Amino acid sequence: MKDISFFFSPKSIAVIGASPIHGKLSNAIIRQLRTMEYPGTVYPVNPKYKSIDSMECYASLTAIKEDVDVVILCIPAPGVLDAMEDVVKKRVKGAIIVSAGFKEMGNDGRILEDKIRDISRETGIRIMGPNCLGVFDNISKVDTFFILRERIKRPQVGGLTILSQSGSFAGTIMDTLAAEGLGVSKIVNYGNRVDVGESDCLEYITNDESTKIVGLYMESVDDGRRFVEVAKKCAEKKPVFAIKVGKHDAGASAARSHTGAIAGRYEIYSAAFKKAGIIEMKSYSEFLDACKILSKHQTTDGKRVLIITDGGGMGVSVADVCDEMGLEVNEPSDGLKNILAQKLPPFCAFVNPIDLTGSATDSDYVTALKKGMAEYDVAIVMALWGPPGLTDKLIQMLSDASRELNKPVIICSPGGEYTQKRNKMFADKGLPVFARPEDAARAAAILAKV
Amino acid sequence: MKDISFFFSPKSIAVIGASPIHGKLSNAIIRQLRTMEYPGTVYPVNPKYKSIDSMECYASLTAIKEDVDVVILCIPAPGVLDAMEDVVKKRVKGAIIVSAGFKEMGNDGRILEDKIRDISRETGIRIMGPNCLGVFDNISKVDTFFILRERIKRPQVGGLTILSQSGSFAGTIMDTLAAEGLGVSKIVNYGNRVDVGESDCLEYITNDESTKIVGLYMESVDDGRRFVEVAKKCAEKKPVFAIKVGKHDAGASAARSHTGAIAGRYEIYSAAFKKAGIIEMKSYSEFLDACKILSKHQTTDGKRVLIITDGGGMGVSVADVCDEMGLEVNEPSDGLKNILAQKLPPFCAFVNPIDLTGSATDSDYVTALKKGMAEYDVAIVMALWGPPGLTDKLIQMLSDASRELNKPVIICSPGGEYTQKRNKMFADKGLPVFARPEDAARAAAILAKV
Repeated sequence: MKDISFFFSPKSIAVIGASPIHGKLSNAIIRQLRTMEYPGTVYPVNPKYKSIDSMECYASLTAIKEDVDVVILCIPAPGVLDAMEDVVKKRVKGAIIVSAGFKEMGNDGRILEDKIRDISRETGIRIMGPNCLGVFDNISKVDTFFILRERIKRPQVGGLTILSQSGSFAGTIMDTLAAEGLGVSKIVNYGNRVDVGESDCLEYITNDESTKIVGLYMESVDDGRRFVEVAKKCAEKKPVFAIKVGKHDAGASAARSHTGAIAGRYEIYSAAFKKAGIIEMKSYSEFLDACKILSKHQTTDGKRVLIITDGGGMGVSVADVCDEMGLEVNEPSDGLKNILAQKLPPFCAFVNPIDLTGSATDSDYVTALKKGMAEYDVAIVMALWGPPGLTDKLIQMLSDASRELNKPVIICSPGGEYTQKRNKMFADKGLPVFARPEDAARAAAILAKV
Repeated sequence: MKDISFFFSPKSIAVIGASPIHGKLSNAIIRQLRTMEYPGTVYPVNPKYKSIDSMECYASLTAIKEDVDVVILCIPAPGVLDAMEDVVKKRVKGAIIVSAGFKEMGNDGRILEDKIRDISRETGIRIMGPNCLGVFDNISKVDTFFILRERIKRPQVGGLTILSQSGSFAGTIMDTLAAEGLGVSKIVNYGNRVDVGESDCLEYITNDESTKIVGLYMESVDDGRRFVEVAKKCAEKKPVFAIKVGKHDAGASAARSHTGAIAGRYEIYSAAFKKAGIIEMKSYSEFLDACKILSKHQTTDGKRVLIITDGGGMGVSVADVCDEMGLEVNEPSDGLKNILAQKLPPFCAFVNPIDLTGSATDSDYVTALKKGMAEYDVAIVMALWGPPGLTDKLIQMLSDASRELNKPVIICSPGGEYTQKRNKMFADKGLPVFARPEDAARAAAILAKV
């Protein structure tokens, strides 16, 4: 009864309300599945058409002779209840109701939604949605997100799975992760959540080997006790981070209207996250920082951060935020200072940040990093490209040094066009890169669990 | 005695330690002045060369027959004191000492620096630096910043002036402002500040008509009383925002080592900013937000923010941060809700954020904005490009609506490649654009003075 695995690897998918017209949601979904090279069978269903995109189109769901694992409903809300009759008859495993116009539209929608929930409970058919995008699965090659690929890019394959109540959050983070070159296993959006929600998904993801880390967006929770229980089990196996949105009066009221959820008091969520071992993120940017850093590094045992810079003032900015976030920005020991003084030019400042100054060279950075990290858990390397002694070789050199050290090395490099190109090069070498001091410090804080 | 205007519009500049070798700081400075088409006369000074870049090179400063307004010293620290003898003889108005290796290097450097300060006090020659970049002036076409244009771009002409104790901060913000397409009047970096500092610059900038807003980066202050006095006068004429870096133990220790300044207790600075009417920014990102939003809009009389979105969850994220920052995210009045309900499709949510949903069109945005703003002081318009009803026409339409309303309209548009291109188009139309909910909310908070 609790199984939802078929949503992620269905042998077949029927699209109810399928249309050959570009721009229609159902058409977009059929095209996504084709672009993904989804290996199962797709059955377009619509009495108006004989074929769609050279696939046979069925007059009704029950006209399909083979078994259907998952149906996607892309029809206006008022028709959904009728359509569910066939869904029940066909004995599918699960339904994704993409259609909007339910609880979020007021009382009539709420009644409709209650009826759909009853169907799920009575028949055991699992339902995702309504008012949702469904499943993007980079491993099994499922993409039910109707948002257009021309506008919202799909990320490459990786170990990050995002579970989101909000469709706009799911779409925006998907596009941003793609732009950042980060790898994703799955993105799930369950919208109004009449049945499948965060707890079901967390339970499934706990044993999903392709998922290495989990990011969770919540406006509300359906069953608090179960959530803490399953989240705890998941967080024991892999890092789980979460954001609770609709924290305050203003946001809470808006959250209520948009997925029809009642967003509870924020402090309760914060306590539940803690209890479950979930790392809490406080804003969209922080959530993104977590996606980036946890995709690259495991958490550390200590919170001692070494900052290396070639620009004093910008280095101090990093030290300030690290300190504010609860990281330890201690000076090197006298012994380490001596070692650094022997290996680096005399004009450098052997404190923390280590300031290599505008006379910095590529090898100064590597020396400072390799020697310095003897006393630290995580490094923030601020590369400002103004100094003429720095060359593009620094990128490979820092990447090698990071691997050799086997400790997290975070690149922080704010600036314009020249810098942004090099940030891309750092990222291509697998290093976590942040343009802002706050984000780099946040990333270190996430790893250090402060 | 207090006059420093000649640093910003010198009739002539002598570069001591001038070199024809590309990569040398002095050579970079001579090339910057040429690239800027600096209208005054440049005198290279170096006994080793007869000419540099087809300009006559002088054996000594005193060998120049004409008056010299400003000299730039690009020679190693140990030679600076000797060179100052000629500077005094030549009776120049001011000297910019680019050379590093003074107070930041310990006691010997401190003694050297004290002697230079004495020279300034005895002769009345104003000194900027040492350990500084000097002056970038987009109006008078002066650029003494040795950082290479290939790496650190220069911003276009505009009304923003940045005063910075830190060279790396000055360079990084310069490059970032250029990449953001923001306009700059001047960027000044006075480094170790033996003479000219933030108070002198603020005093000058107060009456500088090309400067419309002022951003200040401070690690320390030389004369607290004078600073508050001149800053107050400046802030009465134009918005002044500031960041105090080296706030805490960690940062403070690093700040001390890098410009040799003693960074005082943070709370005192915070109180001084308040007293002077300076808007305090707490991080590099916030400083950048202030540069962006104050370049486009004046502060508002109220703090009521209207959020318009086409993605519920992302809208709630904005509402959350607005609320946290002290902005008022109130729902529209019943009267306004009625008006909105008459003009917009029924599936929209008429709360705050106004959620136009994934069915949003360009004109829905404009309607919501024009009608909605009757009850608000500032708008944050979140444009998520997933919904197929949105076209690029939205950009011009929102720009027109913003002008018509004569109230600040802030665009918030997170996402990947497609979105980032449109953000650039928004910016080209003069709208302030932020990719992150936190930054858009911060910008609104800066305008609302909360």
